[in-house]
Amino acid sequence: MSGKLPRAIVFDVFGSVVDWRTSLIDELTAFGAERRIEANWVKLVDDWRGEYIPSLKKVYKGELPWMTLDDLHRASLETLVAGQGIEGLTEADLAYMTRGWHRLKPWPDSVAGLRRLKQGFIIAPLSNGNVSLLVDMAKGADLPWDLVLGCDLFGRYKPAPETYLGAARLLGLEPGEVMMAAAHNGDLKAAKALGLMTAFFARPTEYGPRQEYDLAPTGDWSYVASDIEDLARQLGV
Amino acid sequence: MSGKLPRAIVFDVFGSVVDWRTSLIDELTAFGAERRIEANWVKLVDDWRGEYIPSLKKVYKGELPWMTLDDLHRASLETLVAGQGIEGLTEADLAYMTRGWHRLKPWPDSVAGLRRLKQGFIIAPLSNGNVSLLVDMAKGADLPWDLVLGCDLFGRYKPAPETYLGAARLLGLEPGEVMMAAAHNGDLKAAKALGLMTAFFARPTEYGPRQEYDLAPTGDWSYVASDIEDLARQLGV
Repeated sequence: MSGKLPRAIVFDVFGSVVDWRTSLIDELTAFGAERRIEANWVKLVDDWRGEYIPSLKKVYKGELPWMTLDDLHRASLETLVAGQGIEGLTEADLAYMTRGWHRLKPWPDSVAGLRRLKQGFIIAPLSNGNVSLLVDMAKGADLPWDLVLGCDLFGRYKPAPETYLGAARLLGLEPGEVMMAAAHNGDLKAAKALGLMTAFFARPTEYGPRQEYDLAPTGDWSYVASDIEDLARQLGV
Repeated sequence: MSGKLPRAIVFDVFGSVVDWRTSLIDELTAFGAERRIEANWVKLVDDWRGEYIPSLKKVYKGELPWMTLDDLHRASLETLVAGQGIEGLTEADLAYMTRGWHRLKPWPDSVAGLRRLKQGFIIAPLSNGNVSLLVDMAKGADLPWDLVLGCDLFGRYKPAPETYLGAARLLGLEPGEVMMAAAHNGDLKAAKALGLMTAFFARPTEYGPRQEYDLAPTGDWSYVASDIEDLARQLGV
């Protein structure tokens, strides 16, 4: 723990600020009922997110050219739909489903916590999502960001150093004046190695009821909180 | 005039949203009195802004490498201070004065107008200012941007096409879905040539009581308003 305060706090978004799993399961279940399309929507959502890290790694390693998370989501959705034998989806359906990631809902503490933090700090997402996805999400979920940092600004995905250091550079701050806040220890580990401050809060049901990792801090992070409101409290705002 | 609505509105900032001249004259006059430094602060401010276009052009033409507006402001300030024989300024003074551009005050209608527009549209600055300058300004002046687009994101200054088209690309929109809003006809001319929508509102005292240009629209802009609140009214929010 640390008494030092950052100037800016940048947040991981998927899982840390918004509950992608519940949001997408609810939305796709309703969508399927309305469109009368049969599928195991829970499995589709879990498998869709399961493709996230492998698809980022392909870009990271140069096996795929740079493309936005929207593009990666769309490509993995098409593969999964074919693999799971989901039939009857039109082009408009696939576009609508992919944009579901723009409509994710926040965890119960997120908006209130961010509003408090905004009073004392610059707050921004620092997400592998693209800027337009994050802006749509902020409009829909009322996330009061001061600015929006998506990885398309850097042409690299986290945990590439260019993302964390690029955020500090755009903010005109030293890395040590910026705090990465996330429910994922791996994100914080990469940020800390570059000199950023770090804040952890667990989201123990992000991956559903049987989540086995990121249930607790695994590093010596600057702050450990129970959620974003608790983080605001600890930071004195 | 046009009945069509944009999806996003990007704003010129210096002169269009904030009153740089009055803000800096007030701040530097108070600063000079406190620091007991003799200068013609009005002349310094006018000459400082007078260096703006020439210094941008040097970057634009490649005579200077890319540098942020903060860097350009600092360089031109040093030249002017020497030329005007202003004495006694420390390094800290020069840094403070340069950061005066981060503390500019909005025109009376700006905050209320932007708040209204935010209800119906994505709103952002699209400014030659750097992101950190624009974020500091937004925090200080309560400008409710959805995201912050500074020209350091593109490594080019307006009116380079990369800035207007880069804004549309980051927003995931076609150029025709984005409206450039400014008190400067030249900015709108460049945006319109690339297919953006345009909105003009005059700021007849931006350059002081004897301003001779940008007093009225000189092109066929999508919207012409008296100020940002009037623009919101015309757009139905």
